[in-house]
Amino acid sequence: MGPHPAVAAIRLAVRRVLHDVLNDITPPTTATTVVGAAPHEPPPPLVLVACSGGADSMALASALAFEAPKLGIRAGGVTVDHGLQEGSDARAAEVVNRLAALRLDPVEAVAVSVGRDGGPEAAARDARYAALDAAAERHGAAAVLLGHTRDDQAETVLLGLARGSGIRSLSGMAAVTGAGRYRRPFLQLDRQTARKACMVQSLPVWDDPHNTDPAYTRSRLRHDGLPALEKALGKGVVEALARTAQLSRDDADALDDWAAEADASVRDESGQLECAKLYALPPAVRRRVLRRAAIAAGSPPGSLFARHIEELDRLITGWRGQGVINLPGRVEAQRQGGRLVIRQG
Amino acid sequence: MGPHPAVAAIRLAVRRVLHDVLNDITPPTTATTVVGAAPHEPPPPLVLVACSGGADSMALASALAFEAPKLGIRAGGVTVDHGLQEGSDARAAEVVNRLAALRLDPVEAVAVSVGRDGGPEAAARDARYAALDAAAERHGAAAVLLGHTRDDQAETVLLGLARGSGIRSLSGMAAVTGAGRYRRPFLQLDRQTARKACMVQSLPVWDDPHNTDPAYTRSRLRHDGLPALEKALGKGVVEALARTAQLSRDDADALDDWAAEADASVRDESGQLECAKLYALPPAVRRRVLRRAAIAAGSPPGSLFARHIEELDRLITGWRGQGVINLPGRVEAQRQGGRLVIRQG
Repeated sequence: MGPHPAVAAIRLAVRRVLHDVLNDITPPTTATTVVGAAPHEPPPPLVLVACSGGADSMALASALAFEAPKLGIRAGGVTVDHGLQEGSDARAAEVVNRLAALRLDPVEAVAVSVGRDGGPEAAARDARYAALDAAAERHGAAAVLLGHTRDDQAETVLLGLARGSGIRSLSGMAAVTGAGRYRRPFLQLDRQTARKACMVQSLPVWDDPHNTDPAYTRSRLRHDGLPALEKALGKGVVEALARTAQLSRDDADALDDWAAEADASVRDESGQLECAKLYALPPAVRRRVLRRAAIAAGSPPGSLFARHIEELDRLITGWRGQGVINLPGRVEAQRQGGRLVIRQG
Repeated sequence: MGPHPAVAAIRLAVRRVLHDVLNDITPPTTATTVVGAAPHEPPPPLVLVACSGGADSMALASALAFEAPKLGIRAGGVTVDHGLQEGSDARAAEVVNRLAALRLDPVEAVAVSVGRDGGPEAAARDARYAALDAAAERHGAAAVLLGHTRDDQAETVLLGLARGSGIRSLSGMAAVTGAGRYRRPFLQLDRQTARKACMVQSLPVWDDPHNTDPAYTRSRLRHDGLPALEKALGKGVVEALARTAQLSRDDADALDDWAAEADASVRDESGQLECAKLYALPPAVRRRVLRRAAIAAGSPPGSLFARHIEELDRLITGWRGQGVINLPGRVEAQRQGGRLVIRQG
């Protein structure tokens, strides 16, 4: 009798990703490899799981513990103590014990101090990734696995939708980020499967109180917004949102590439943007060229909203003698003699 | 004292669109026009409003009645009797009276019979537009105004999101469709403003029971889904969804154009699709080229889903000797000697 279907599903998802990791670290051709034991065999690669102790990442840890040895990979784990709740250090120590019980090695808890930049969720995320980056470097890990599920992806798409800043913000999380360091094996897997896999494997899981705290946008979305949307639109909404993420990502990538190419073609010899040439571009490409130019001039990408780009675009498509336009990062834009001049003031 | 802000807002929205209509029917250059009264002055253009008797389209009718004469435009109205409810004919006659009371002329009720193709909402829409097309032809109307608001647009984006079929389905309704025949002056205006404008002008409005019937997806979305999403994500959701529609539309247009251009470059001399050249395209462009090819071979666009295109795409990007792939409309696709062959079986 094979494993429970939920356990089979999480293991398959992890196995696929581990194969990808091996492919990425192994030189593509082995034709010139000397047959026989090399005198200095490199140590087996290490893959870490980032584990909060919640069901998603505990399921991920269990699947990694099961699959890694079969592929000659060492499996380790890191848990980040954000220090945001009373007793979070004791909890992190307990997660370390649970990971060690799965025979992960090395296993460690890393304490971080969370700042305030960009709001509580963004600050916690920044601190977490900095700690994971450091842990990956310290242990020489080939990859760090993250437990985000298809449900997390759907929530991320809706959060992006609420920004209304275009298809890049609809593209959710990528399966691979950080130049291959971070991998999300469960991005096509639903949260229910991860929970089920923990249950049938009798894995103790910790429910993060943040996940049910209505002070957090994502938590409100998870417990109220998304279920209401499913009730109105049908059960396929989460899958549809996840598919939208993938399609939007590819579309945004293609248009970004187009804009990067178009960028050179709309400048004069001195490198200045020519309004007539910008006007001739498709609106979707022109807006991206303008966004690139604003960022190049010093506007922080995170503060540059659709309305800024629209205002900039009107210098090209709705010219009626507008004055200087102020963009984030003390960047100023104005039209001068058929050229669009964007620079830090 | 000027009009109430809500009334000013609906009038401004209609005035802008009427200017566009005049621009579109007037030849761009008038330099050679003979000055003085022409012997056969053309009749003033006619603009119709499509009016259900609901608040949105009654507000639209009132604004059209006010603005059109000032621009030398005749204002008329059409109401469609879908025959789906007891007494719908009497109601249509009442809407005609209300439009006539606004001094619209001509005004008429058109009875249609709603089929079943594509579900009740799609069938009613098809019948409605066929009737509006016929009315526009019959009266020689330059345009037909539709009362869709920003809230309708947000709902349409969410309905498209639920299909998960990519950014074209996120692009909602266009401000102008039918080669300029249909115009949506209220697409940037919220429903509340239209309702307020009716109230302060003491216009009687009819609430369509369909709009509150939970049997209809859009009605569930309006009364439960969208409010819950607003509660989770904030009041700006409707505006963000409407902006997403516009940005997605421009992006989808640009990528469709790219695919149309790429189409020719990936075919051999005999017009067959070359797999190697398809492989080299960005995924977003390749998928669109494949979709075009399936449609050209006879697949009905409405039945061609993202999963069909994904399966087709795997013949290019994940070739492992797959057999014939069946697409809607009895279309078959297969890889043959480095070529992708798509044809009706």
